Amino acid sequence: MTLRVTVPDNRWLERLADLDDRVALEVWNLTDAQPRGRIDLAVSPYRNSTDGIDRMDASRLGVLQLQTLGYDGVADILPAGITCCNAVGVHEGSTAELAVALLLASARGLDVYARERGQWNRRWGTSVADRRIMLLGYGGIGVEVEKRLEGFEAELVRVAGHHREDVHGSDELVDLLPTVDAVVVAVPLSESTVGLIDDAFLGALPDGAVVVNVSRGKVADTDAVVRQAGRIRYATDVTDPEPLPADHALWEVPGVLISPHVGGMSTAMQPRIDAVVRRQITNLLEGRGPDSVVISP
Amino acid sequence: MTLRVTVPDNRWLERLADLDDRVALEVWNLTDAQPRGRIDLAVSPYRNSTDGIDRMDASRLGVLQLQTLGYDGVADILPAGITCCNAVGVHEGSTAELAVALLLASARGLDVYARERGQWNRRWGTSVADRRIMLLGYGGIGVEVEKRLEGFEAELVRVAGHHREDVHGSDELVDLLPTVDAVVVAVPLSESTVGLIDDAFLGALPDGAVVVNVSRGKVADTDAVVRQAGRIRYATDVTDPEPLPADHALWEVPGVLISPHVGGMSTAMQPRIDAVVRRQITNLLEGRGPDSVVISP
Repeated sequence: MTLRVTVPDNRWLERLADLDDRVALEVWNLTDAQPRGRIDLAVSPYRNSTDGIDRMDASRLGVLQLQTLGYDGVADILPAGITCCNAVGVHEGSTAELAVALLLASARGLDVYARERGQWNRRWGTSVADRRIMLLGYGGIGVEVEKRLEGFEAELVRVAGHHREDVHGSDELVDLLPTVDAVVVAVPLSESTVGLIDDAFLGALPDGAVVVNVSRGKVADTDAVVRQAGRIRYATDVTDPEPLPADHALWEVPGVLISPHVGGMSTAMQPRIDAVVRRQITNLLEGRGPDSVVISP
Repeated sequence: MTLRVTVPDNRWLERLADLDDRVALEVWNLTDAQPRGRIDLAVSPYRNSTDGIDRMDASRLGVLQLQTLGYDGVADILPAGITCCNAVGVHEGSTAELAVALLLASARGLDVYARERGQWNRRWGTSVADRRIMLLGYGGIGVEVEKRLEGFEAELVRVAGHHREDVHGSDELVDLLPTVDAVVVAVPLSESTVGLIDDAFLGALPDGAVVVNVSRGKVADTDAVVRQAGRIRYATDVTDPEPLPADHALWEVPGVLISPHVGGMSTAMQPRIDAVVRRQITNLLEGRGPDSVVISP
């Protein structure tokens, strides 16, 4: 038996060159025509767009492996019969690392110092030590943020959808916000989280609090952030709209630090996505179903 | 018995207002004339300068408590007979926090994104995860950096003056530098560390390595950093000269992130220096000598 696997570019062929003879590898980027014959596993390019997914021929394709954790919009267009898997364990650590970077840089004023180049302008910063830091969203990314903040002498306040041991439920959010000095937002985008970071949310935070957003841009009401930044600080890897237009007010508001959705774009990604694809190949070779199925056929 | 203690400003009087009747508190900033009568403990202002220390009257002063960890130059001018103590445990955590902030911000490009405001210019960053990170200097600050980096999936390489268990000696430095992706420098300033970060040091590091300096400006050869930055990245809280003049080349070299010596300037400081002063007061009230003596009478 040969397992036929497509990968999105030539570098993948090199990285997987050591796979055994039972695996036939070729390049397909999903936007060119689908190669003839049946494909057991197609690895998508690393991008947020869903280009090409609607044109896949389900009669000749088994499993689509995304390189992203998010799969916004894929279910709407994926041809019936294809199994879709997301990239669990690939981006969480890298995104959590960026979340901590954004938190520390904003709290200690590194963004301001970077922009003020040439000025020796000392200011007192807010330490993470001694602060109460809310982890809002306690899934894959939230857990990784917690792991990284453990040595910082901060008090962590976990909030998830539902109350469980050591984790507050989201019904307690309003009461908790005035008690924390920072919030790291890593909730999934859903009907209940769209616009979560609004005027009421930001207004409930004490002066000088830092909000870090590594979730999705639409989790924040951008106009509310523009209104309240200056009193609070906002350090975000995601925006709404995204990309953020050059003339958008959010770029110029004091207290705002923006990175251009690069949470997963680090050297941590490649070894982890390679490991996911290798594990899926093993799963299929050994007759098991794939891991991390998010859309069943 | 009454213990007479001077503090550098009025806010200290409020913060120590709960001390018992045996303690007489008054304000002295060291630069005004020394108050009449004997002072048991004088708390210096928080500053790097030694202003006023040479004019203290040793016949009427017992212990000088510095608010800094460093005491460069104090021994040269302290009148004989005064005991001088540094501020152990006050700044190490805050400085280590800033060191991690500088490392993460530089590795993930947050300084560049902050300066490029208005541009949505995504770039791959270097994760801390999977990297080998050298902690050069394994004293108070180095240990605190280690504690904070523990959850980041990095491999830590400890280097101190002399080899001991799990810590490399500085004689191994030349061999280790080519094997690491980042170096956090937290050595004390001494004859053996002046100019440590020179052309040979930087040249031994692989392309794209990050050097973080939270030690002293003179530990780096600034001209060497200017020559090598761009190939490596340099994120520093200290400079030589300091303050760094507005027209200095280091401000403009690509890959350099500078904070203006604010490692200890965070909200973490006040509760910790208060605790040190309270502990010294207790020591003296109970007839013990002070802690953290760096210059004996």
